[in-house]
Amino acid sequence: PLRVCVCAVVDESNGKVLVVQDRNKTTNAWKFPGGLSDLGENIGETAVREVFEETGVRSQFCSLLSVRQQHNHPGAFGMSDLYLICRLSPLSFRIDFCTQECLRCEWLDLTELAKTSETTPITSRVARLLLYGLENGFQNIDLTMEQMPAVYSGRFYQLYHRRLVFFNQETFTGEAQ
Amino acid sequence: PLRVCVCAVVDESNGKVLVVQDRNKTTNAWKFPGGLSDLGENIGETAVREVFEETGVRSQFCSLLSVRQQHNHPGAFGMSDLYLICRLSPLSFRIDFCTQECLRCEWLDLTELAKTSETTPITSRVARLLLYGLENGFQNIDLTMEQMPAVYSGRFYQLYHRRLVFFNQETFTGEAQ
Repeated sequence: PLRVCVCAVVDESNGKVLVVQDRNKTTNAWKFPGGLSDLGENIGETAVREVFEETGVRSQFCSLLSVRQQHNHPGAFGMSDLYLICRLSPLSFRIDFCTQECLRCEWLDLTELAKTSETTPITSRVARLLLYGLENGFQNIDLTMEQMPAVYSGRFYQLYHRRLVFFNQETFTGEAQ
Repeated sequence: PLRVCVCAVVDESNGKVLVVQDRNKTTNAWKFPGGLSDLGENIGETAVREVFEETGVRSQFCSLLSVRQQHNHPGAFGMSDLYLICRLSPLSFRIDFCTQECLRCEWLDLTELAKTSETTPITSRVARLLLYGLENGFQNIDLTMEQMPAVYSGRFYQLYHRRLVFFNQETFTGEAQ
């Protein structure tokens, strides 16, 4: 079963998001950059690396937004792939995209991506999610990340889940009953 | 990289949750049942199957709650494992647990699991998340699942993300701008 990182690099200053068109597909639909996890990489590392390799843009990982599971993908030998959809923040803006992978690469308005027909259903859906985050605060769409100790190894792992807000607006930290 | 389903089977009628103690661990900590995905299984199928094989309890998949990534697990050959933590609802209640895997298996009060020291940090954390859901509604902790069409294959996939609630309390369905 494959693990794929899908990376939405959102520039909060102007509401643009980094999108690409694949070189080897029949329809030229705008999509988010991304790719397969290497061994030993965590989600954030894969996301930052894939964005840079594909587009030349440097970025930092912000959050996990969504998990997608696809069934019985033809050509995947009966395995179901898992897509981890991440939000990243750009650290550089100049595009220098991989011409072997991409036909085009642009900073596109999120509003435009949310309504264009030249995209995939998933990209369109995530664009609307991001637009909601841009307008109402990303804390409304991000999954909270907590770093916690592993029992047997003494190492750490990351747990992503919904942020819980009590009536007094304090964030649920895990200390509460 | 391994994909593991962790299954919290919560009985809403009495606030109990199904927990096990592993046979082959040095500490006897309460944990949620679970196990590895088989090829071609989706998250819900793995969860229901693993719960039944390990505990004898029949259940149905309700939602994805949380994603956990563990780094550099010793013995995992440098791969990072991904744990998908699910919420399930019981369809039967009689326990007939797998004695090769488990030392004990019980329906435990969520309140007790949330405060006992005889558990792992992750289990304790998820127990508090579930307790919040039990008291305030599971819609506050569940990730929303949407079924969407895949472009090239014509098949379907599942997308899990935060539910967005507008001020008029309508759920964000993806139709909104």
